[in-house]
Amino acid sequence: MTNLEDFFFSVDTENNDATPAVRAALAAARAGGERRLVFPKARYDFWPDRAFEQYWFISNNDEGLKRIVFPLEGLEDFEIDGQGSEFVFHGYVLPFTLRGCKEITLKNFSIDWARTFHSEAVVLAAREGSIDIEIPEQFPYKIPHDRLVFTGEGDITYDISNMLEFDTNKRETAFGVFDNFAVHDWHTAEEIGPRQVRVHAKFSTLPTPGNTMAIMDGGRLCPTITIERSQGVTVQNVTLYHSGGMGIIAQHSSDLRVENLTVTTPPESGRMISLTADATHFVNCAGEIVLENCVFENQMDDATNVHGIYGQISAIVSPTEIEFALVHPQQLGIDIFAAGDPIEFVRNTTLETFHENTVARVDRVNKQFTRLTLESPLPTDLSLKDAVANLRWIPNLTARGCRSRGNRARGFLVTTGGKALIENNHFHIAGAAILIEGDANYWFESGKVRDVTIRGNHFENCNYGVWGTATIEVNPGVAEPYRAQSLYHHSIRVENNTFDDFHGRLLAAHCVDGLTFTGNVMRPSGAYPKRSAGGELLEITHCANVDIRDNDLSTS
Amino acid sequence: MTNLEDFFFSVDTENNDATPAVRAALAAARAGGERRLVFPKARYDFWPDRAFEQYWFISNNDEGLKRIVFPLEGLEDFEIDGQGSEFVFHGYVLPFTLRGCKEITLKNFSIDWARTFHSEAVVLAAREGSIDIEIPEQFPYKIPHDRLVFTGEGDITYDISNMLEFDTNKRETAFGVFDNFAVHDWHTAEEIGPRQVRVHAKFSTLPTPGNTMAIMDGGRLCPTITIERSQGVTVQNVTLYHSGGMGIIAQHSSDLRVENLTVTTPPESGRMISLTADATHFVNCAGEIVLENCVFENQMDDATNVHGIYGQISAIVSPTEIEFALVHPQQLGIDIFAAGDPIEFVRNTTLETFHENTVARVDRVNKQFTRLTLESPLPTDLSLKDAVANLRWIPNLTARGCRSRGNRARGFLVTTGGKALIENNHFHIAGAAILIEGDANYWFESGKVRDVTIRGNHFENCNYGVWGTATIEVNPGVAEPYRAQSLYHHSIRVENNTFDDFHGRLLAAHCVDGLTFTGNVMRPSGAYPKRSAGGELLEITHCANVDIRDNDLSTS
Repeated sequence: MTNLEDFFFSVDTENNDATPAVRAALAAARAGGERRLVFPKARYDFWPDRAFEQYWFISNNDEGLKRIVFPLEGLEDFEIDGQGSEFVFHGYVLPFTLRGCKEITLKNFSIDWARTFHSEAVVLAAREGSIDIEIPEQFPYKIPHDRLVFTGEGDITYDISNMLEFDTNKRETAFGVFDNFAVHDWHTAEEIGPRQVRVHAKFSTLPTPGNTMAIMDGGRLCPTITIERSQGVTVQNVTLYHSGGMGIIAQHSSDLRVENLTVTTPPESGRMISLTADATHFVNCAGEIVLENCVFENQMDDATNVHGIYGQISAIVSPTEIEFALVHPQQLGIDIFAAGDPIEFVRNTTLETFHENTVARVDRVNKQFTRLTLESPLPTDLSLKDAVANLRWIPNLTARGCRSRGNRARGFLVTTGGKALIENNHFHIAGAAILIEGDANYWFESGKVRDVTIRGNHFENCNYGVWGTATIEVNPGVAEPYRAQSLYHHSIRVENNTFDDFHGRLLAAHCVDGLTFTGNVMRPSGAYPKRSAGGELLEITHCANVDIRDNDLSTS
Repeated sequence: MTNLEDFFFSVDTENNDATPAVRAALAAARAGGERRLVFPKARYDFWPDRAFEQYWFISNNDEGLKRIVFPLEGLEDFEIDGQGSEFVFHGYVLPFTLRGCKEITLKNFSIDWARTFHSEAVVLAAREGSIDIEIPEQFPYKIPHDRLVFTGEGDITYDISNMLEFDTNKRETAFGVFDNFAVHDWHTAEEIGPRQVRVHAKFSTLPTPGNTMAIMDGGRLCPTITIERSQGVTVQNVTLYHSGGMGIIAQHSSDLRVENLTVTTPPESGRMISLTADATHFVNCAGEIVLENCVFENQMDDATNVHGIYGQISAIVSPTEIEFALVHPQQLGIDIFAAGDPIEFVRNTTLETFHENTVARVDRVNKQFTRLTLESPLPTDLSLKDAVANLRWIPNLTARGCRSRGNRARGFLVTTGGKALIENNHFHIAGAAILIEGDANYWFESGKVRDVTIRGNHFENCNYGVWGTATIEVNPGVAEPYRAQSLYHHSIRVENNTFDDFHGRLLAAHCVDGLTFTGNVMRPSGAYPKRSAGGELLEITHCANVDIRDNDLSTS
């Protein structure tokens, strides 16, 4: 066992920075074949200054040359045990990266930043074209040349990409509000009192005085736990109070267990927002993904998203060679194929698979383009914009006993062809609690589902925000003219769930073959005003083999 | 011999992009052991889309993940002959990088960009707080939210970091004008006529109607020829019309010949500015650097700069271990030491060497910090902020028969401990024609000179701008209180030069041991108003062994 306190060298005292101690401890543990690094229970501060440096492409986050405090690479059978410690980070630094690791456990610590990447303010007044806000001292700012800029430690400044209104009392996004992305392109600001600022901008919806504006820097530069090409990773009894990006992001990894992960705001911090993006996110993973007894609260994006990546065909080089592009800017640089991988070809219109093959050779051109040589000849009706996906990296997903609430956007995004079980969870989500999507034109997230079970969950008044049209939404990116030709998703069972509901939109689904909705109970709540969108309780279009029975759906 | 035309595949036809052909040709040449890649004389367009990608730290330019059209790595005895071709680049792409190469020749081509990284405009009027400009069609722009933004190919936009006035008729920076960097932090703009814009900002000096404003994007992301850890590189008969950074930048390389390089604006382009930064720049190089029969015209920074890098001591770890920092943001990531290198320690105050040692081991922490283990014990009076420099990488420099004019800033910066010969050149430079500097507090450019000869040059009315105080300036960064204790530079001979002069400031030097100024002729010209700064013809302070004689310095 390696104990961090054996590594407090002189250089560590600057800023009370534990980063060099971690570096030395990891090196010593590796050299000595140790299996555990333990932290005496305490607060540890980590600065980027002496951190390890490496360029990372991290799906759905921002690529870049990163500073990393715990860079785990090629480690096997290793455990980091915080023993209840608080890990406090400073500035642009990634807490954990895992690459090429096997059987790693991270447990018993919390992660926060001394200065959050986002800021918050209380709404004092609002009128067409401007709002007045009061900014707590923990979010320092300046107004150079009439523009509101938040400041951090050292000379860090944070831009404003979005302002989003939260209901201060309910601690959730305010009812029916939209993101205010326009404030990024243009706003002016003026000081109107002590820490009181008037912001002139185009606001999508005028906020209510007393509510809280989450003021987001657009960057996703510093996710907390990044996992790449690793197998057997367990995150256990970890609390994530903040991140500059996602909480846990895994790519091309398998057998990932997340147990008793709590994503929330620090007690008595006065903060509304926890993480600045998704709590967890799994891209082109495999094996078993398990989320058990987790809490996902007040992060600025989805609770989880499990999906693959579609590449878009950009050139047909020969009867056995294509070039494809990664299109979504936050997917660039991810090597989605290796030689020997099974590959499917889908139309970008219907998303239907029209060809399968095997990758013989991969030549990466750069982070955007890759050339593939296939083992068998390609069909002659292959078109530019058709999409390719990897059939090897398809995980099973179990999400059980988790509580999700108060965040922006959606709950669980389930886009995987493996066996997915969403069981005994509690959702109070602004958008869709469960979204099954997949598209090859905008997000390029692949994953035709084949076996999804949603059972025994409690959906408590979901869809009070704008991110979705029903509590459970099965909405692959097939445009209306092509829906009649597409049965993209397969075998989705929604069983024995309870819906506390105020707006009569439990399920919206299209392009599904095999949809069962049985044993579910709806309890009208009147908790919020009915959303104006309207629509049916169960909106099912372009589906086959639909089985709806034995539900108790008495309307309010 | 490999001929590019054998590599025009189907994919090349998109945008008429020759980049994939170059990639294929280089691969074929390497595989076949070919020694030459020739281009049938023509215009070739190169786009970044299918270019090779690699992260580069490039001294005095901007680091980043680069797209590179000619990525030469580990090549030996290879020649690229453009045979008079025009190479036209598009967007953010580096034309040439050389790493770990030996005996490479690049010859007979020109380099330009389809859309320059900078823009230009003609001054219509100017008054306190605003100027009116007319922007030629080759520099597209938009004014979103009252801010002037220049636009490029695709969705590229160019920020404004500086506006600098050029005398349209003289094709040089206007007399005595300052850079307008403040326009970056704040300006507003409004359209006042067809392609006519009023820019409100704080201008350092009001420009004269009819003059040309160079409007610079601050980035130095795309130097044209970047050379790292290579030996024996010749650039011959090459014309550089543009760059997004420096023209030729070499680091840790030796034996570099630049012959008949022409840096200028394309004929009939209507452009005032050639490169956006220095024409040539040599950092921690060795062996022989030769600049012969070159033209350096109208680039936005110095004609050449030869120097090393000072690291700043950031921690004293043990009697034989230190940590040092690279401080200048554009020096980060450059590995200035390797095991076995001789190292000198200098005071940051006097720049005097107080200790020499040998590097036993190098541990890079990250791009900012490096830990060094030394072979012998360190002195006990070592202090933080003392500086370290490498004594292995010190080149000789010969600059002969070159013509430099019209650029912003200085001519030749000579900060090398090797033998430097500046002979038979012509200078018409806004700042100092020759600057011998070195400092360990701001630029961190090392290079105590030991043998500099400046002879037979024609200095034609230099110092009409603000970048320097004399035609030849020897000005190491030793603050006044420490100058009496410092004889930083050694053995500088200024012989048999002709100075056409309007302001009576031929030489300013301090902290030199061994300064000879003989056989020089001054011809009063009255070509510009006398600069207000005044001062002596030869201002020599804190020097030893000064020999001034046999000059013809009749004043105007």
